[in-house]
Amino acid sequence: MMIEAWSMGPGTLEVPLSLFAKNRERLAEKLQNGQVVVLQGGDDISHYDTDIQYVFRQEAYFTWVCAVREPGCYFALDVKTKKAYLFVPRLPEEYEVWMGKLLTCSEFKKIYGIEEVHYVDELQAVLKSLNPDTLLTLRGPNTDSGLTAKEAVFEGIDEFKVDNEILFPVIAELRVVKTPQEIEVMRYVCKVSSDAHKQVMLYARPGLMEYQCESVFLDHCYRVGGCRHVSYTCICGSGNNGATLHYGHAAAPNAKMIHDGDMCLFDMGGNYAGYAADITCSFPANGKFTDDQKLIYEAVLAARDAVVREAKPGVLWSDMHLTANRAMLEHLKKGNLLKGDVEMMIKNGVNGILQPHGLGHLLGLDVHDVGGYLPHCPPRLAGPLGRLRTARGLQAGMILTIEPGCYFINRPKLAVPSYCRLSNSLRTNGAFTGAGGQHLRTPTSIGHLSYVPRPFPRRVELLSLTLVSLRISSFLI
Amino acid sequence: MMIEAWSMGPGTLEVPLSLFAKNRERLAEKLQNGQVVVLQGGDDISHYDTDIQYVFRQEAYFTWVCAVREPGCYFALDVKTKKAYLFVPRLPEEYEVWMGKLLTCSEFKKIYGIEEVHYVDELQAVLKSLNPDTLLTLRGPNTDSGLTAKEAVFEGIDEFKVDNEILFPVIAELRVVKTPQEIEVMRYVCKVSSDAHKQVMLYARPGLMEYQCESVFLDHCYRVGGCRHVSYTCICGSGNNGATLHYGHAAAPNAKMIHDGDMCLFDMGGNYAGYAADITCSFPANGKFTDDQKLIYEAVLAARDAVVREAKPGVLWSDMHLTANRAMLEHLKKGNLLKGDVEMMIKNGVNGILQPHGLGHLLGLDVHDVGGYLPHCPPRLAGPLGRLRTARGLQAGMILTIEPGCYFINRPKLAVPSYCRLSNSLRTNGAFTGAGGQHLRTPTSIGHLSYVPRPFPRRVELLSLTLVSLRISSFLI
Repeated sequence: MMIEAWSMGPGTLEVPLSLFAKNRERLAEKLQNGQVVVLQGGDDISHYDTDIQYVFRQEAYFTWVCAVREPGCYFALDVKTKKAYLFVPRLPEEYEVWMGKLLTCSEFKKIYGIEEVHYVDELQAVLKSLNPDTLLTLRGPNTDSGLTAKEAVFEGIDEFKVDNEILFPVIAELRVVKTPQEIEVMRYVCKVSSDAHKQVMLYARPGLMEYQCESVFLDHCYRVGGCRHVSYTCICGSGNNGATLHYGHAAAPNAKMIHDGDMCLFDMGGNYAGYAADITCSFPANGKFTDDQKLIYEAVLAARDAVVREAKPGVLWSDMHLTANRAMLEHLKKGNLLKGDVEMMIKNGVNGILQPHGLGHLLGLDVHDVGGYLPHCPPRLAGPLGRLRTARGLQAGMILTIEPGCYFINRPKLAVPSYCRLSNSLRTNGAFTGAGGQHLRTPTSIGHLSYVPRPFPRRVELLSLTLVSLRISSFLI
Repeated sequence: MMIEAWSMGPGTLEVPLSLFAKNRERLAEKLQNGQVVVLQGGDDISHYDTDIQYVFRQEAYFTWVCAVREPGCYFALDVKTKKAYLFVPRLPEEYEVWMGKLLTCSEFKKIYGIEEVHYVDELQAVLKSLNPDTLLTLRGPNTDSGLTAKEAVFEGIDEFKVDNEILFPVIAELRVVKTPQEIEVMRYVCKVSSDAHKQVMLYARPGLMEYQCESVFLDHCYRVGGCRHVSYTCICGSGNNGATLHYGHAAAPNAKMIHDGDMCLFDMGGNYAGYAADITCSFPANGKFTDDQKLIYEAVLAARDAVVREAKPGVLWSDMHLTANRAMLEHLKKGNLLKGDVEMMIKNGVNGILQPHGLGHLLGLDVHDVGGYLPHCPPRLAGPLGRLRTARGLQAGMILTIEPGCYFINRPKLAVPSYCRLSNSLRTNGAFTGAGGQHLRTPTSIGHLSYVPRPFPRRVELLSLTLVSLRISSFLI
């Protein structure tokens, strides 16, 4: 009997295997007869020289084509026949005692819904039998990390004509535009993560350690949502720590006590079936905004709302970024935090001082998903807009985060210039110090789903709505 | 002001920095003037080509000498002066916005209690100024994984006389025998993990998924005990899955539903300040042992107790292994599960069929800690005892796990031969099938602490006592 879907059990999403079959079909349609795609999956990573390994997580392109959860595999797709081939390692017998029953190739076929399964040591022979004009391997830049996708290598590859340029822009572009089935998975992982943020808000209070909130998030994602992994290290900043964009790493491990008066900035997202959520919430630890905190929070919210209003197919992401910046600056000006002309502020980089990152990013199997700067897309812009993770126009089926922020970072370079500062004591310094809220950042992921039928057509669908509950300011009381 | 200790906040253990200073002092005492130890710390690991990294975890030898939590560092120890040197990466300014305030060298000195801190790009010059006869780098086999410790490499190392053989056996041997301060940390992480197992037992019941129990364990370790990491992937096997020794990996991700009648075998241990716990518990999911389950459980318990009774300095680990095997087989025989002579069973390998792994292992910064087969120690034995992770004699200050087990694994090679099987229907097959308990395995870590003063001298101290609460068989009702 073929298996139709994968899930983590009752209450978790059934991910149909046809999702990945559809991805393969879309890929084959973009390529030429005679071409055979070859991808190499990820390998186990040891903890240094020990016999302990990190829990294996599959590489994202490999997941996209077949969602195989075992390390050490290869995948091939014959464009002519549209047939998929999986190659699994031939494991020694003693593996069974330690790791579980050795699956046969025909069991693998059923589990992953792949037409043919062989052992890795048969890869060369099977590929030969397909008599390909060209093997297509994957090589291309990840424009967020500067690293390069790992190209398939195997013994005997030099007996084939190999092209490592054709595949990358095609498959990366296909990953940018999500299918309806992928969007279902994204909705699920965003919902689970959003619910987990709510649990954290109910739990958080002054006197707790930041990491205790992280633990509540992880537990909800896993125990309730079946998400064994998060998509990135949880960022649980309270007070000043909220102003460190990637706080939470090993040397700053969410280990400060949350104090009365602190704002919490929690940036955390689960991962299900490889698909990532990315949600940031800001809320006052004691359940009550101060006037300043509220002003800044509302400014960031105004920025988000402005983007949600204007986002639609065809709009440039760089325009959205500036739309968010403008809305935030206008709000801060109205609230008497800033003075002067907003366009002048932008001209002079005040937007980049208060928000030293881009508006958001593509979201999918990677949290900073691929395809931001492909060859056929607008190139990276000059100047401060160069920090954007894409300069593309929006398309139906894209999923992006909208995450404007307002940071008061205590660094000379990031001080708001005096000509646009008002001289309130809390506000004369570029950084808020003491117990006041340091910075705020709204979620949230949006799915750009213009084709989803709904009674009153909306141009975008919010996948995660944690923020809404947050707006009930008594939520934590 | 110097920082004296590291902790994860209120309620978690304060780990004194003097613990690591003491390790350095012990190391210097074993080496010669003119020698300078150079270790290279771990680096960040990216998730494939993305800009997402695994949460950094320091390499164990590096932790042992200085407990530095940042990636990309080097460490040196001048034997003559006993002075320690830390070398940290010189990070770009923009790092601050993303990762937090750049610490100065003098701040690192305070945080880690290291005498001198420089940048990595000063490593060669600083080492030159020490005018060493020889640099000692770390190279040697990990006898559990077959991998090799990563030797320090840096630009300009070829201008020094380097020896990569002296250091390894010395530092590995020092790691085998724990100091009182290290033992305190081990007690703590075992206590946290033991408490977490109890929470899991209270939570577990038929109808839940195995991974939900894993999540409860992780949450308790982190939220209550400050353990961000576990020491190895959680093994949460119920029913048949308990018979897969390293169940829980990515392709078998603790994703079975727990059924009425299942035994749960949960093998999980937290990690605090780099130090590992390793605890396995077996219990009936519904809170009540069947007669068969009870018999097997008690047999494994008898094995553990026999070892606890006999373990003392000077005793060989291989003898303890056989002591455990004998006690278990005797118990199974008394319970009419096996027939015949126990010594004959051992001669014919029945012990290795029912327990296809060694009795336990050294425990410390690594869960399978180093030093099992150092050059000055008894070599690996021939035959079935070759699977033991050490053949050493016990010494005061060693910490070892005692984890006998009894598995009924459904593989032809692991079927109990008919001459020693009784013909009970449940027992004629090498594997228990259906809803019955598949196998059992007791904890637990013991600290071999003969020098810890106590009113009634005991030869060993149990670091984790989860099992005791388990013996109240109504615990889960």
